[in-house]
Amino acid sequence: MDLKEAILSRRSIRSYKSDLVSEQTLKELFNLVKMSPSWANTQVWEFVLVTDKHIKDKLINSMPEGNPARKACSEAPIMIVELGIKGKSGFKKGEPMTNKGDNWYMYDAGIAMQTLCLAAHSMGLGTVILGLFDAEQAGKILNLPENIAVVAMTPIGYPAADSKCPPRKDISEFIYKDSYGVKKF
Amino acid sequence: MDLKEAILSRRSIRSYKSDLVSEQTLKELFNLVKMSPSWANTQVWEFVLVTDKHIKDKLINSMPEGNPARKACSEAPIMIVELGIKGKSGFKKGEPMTNKGDNWYMYDAGIAMQTLCLAAHSMGLGTVILGLFDAEQAGKILNLPENIAVVAMTPIGYPAADSKCPPRKDISEFIYKDSYGVKKF
Repeated sequence: MDLKEAILSRRSIRSYKSDLVSEQTLKELFNLVKMSPSWANTQVWEFVLVTDKHIKDKLINSMPEGNPARKACSEAPIMIVELGIKGKSGFKKGEPMTNKGDNWYMYDAGIAMQTLCLAAHSMGLGTVILGLFDAEQAGKILNLPENIAVVAMTPIGYPAADSKCPPRKDISEFIYKDSYGVKKF
Repeated sequence: MDLKEAILSRRSIRSYKSDLVSEQTLKELFNLVKMSPSWANTQVWEFVLVTDKHIKDKLINSMPEGNPARKACSEAPIMIVELGIKGKSGFKKGEPMTNKGDNWYMYDAGIAMQTLCLAAHSMGLGTVILGLFDAEQAGKILNLPENIAVVAMTPIGYPAADSKCPPRKDISEFIYKDSYGVKKF
């Protein structure tokens, strides 16, 4: 799929078929995800692919009741949990290098997740990025060590229905020239 | 350009021609960037495109001496500064909804920056994401209001030289099955 078409046609998918995703497809997907850039190539993202129904249900229970993401995760054959290794991205010799402290793993995780969403879409797979859940509870369910944070989740699978694209700001609203507030376009 | 080819062939570019980037190209680029997903479609990213040499030099001086990024920014015709609106992404009715507090703007900014880097690459443009600079100093240079953070910068322009791709982890090293540490591949 053409890159521009992929960016323009990707949607957050909230309705999934139960069809499985092949091992080969998953390997191809993560071999693309790993090409994402990261702070000093620290590659602090890790992923848990959850197919076990018991663990999936526990993760779904870490989300607020009534959240439509629950249905999406329940339908899709796999839940992908994105993790971040703490204390590396944005650090040098164990010391944070910027005023963002230990939050560059969030930035790097965002980069990797966009690679994942676009690559999945180009393979006919749907995703929807989820951030609203009890991350500490999810970490316990997945037996994470202390230095690893749960960042986000997405179901992944073949879409059962299209989604609409929510409206975006016009570029005139968020692009400035040389100084904040001076419109570029 | 094909999406997979774009993901595989994108490099962090540290050497630029002085050739200008057309207004039409910039518009096309940011009309793709704005399609990036974000927390509840909050779209908290904003961008300042800096071409004024005086302001560009000041921003370059917010980076550590000896940093090779300085040369890249000096050569390229434009520096893009990525901003994040604080207190919105990850919030509901003014309250943070997760244990990440006000750091979801970092995640959303990462998503948008990967869209930017891939789209730029498909148009023949180079980028290199920079996080190592004095963000408070940069914010003053750009006259940012208090609720806006400088997140990252990238020069943008036509590459003067190819870059090598630093090695990546194998997918066997960062993909787990159902529980942390249980290898998937």
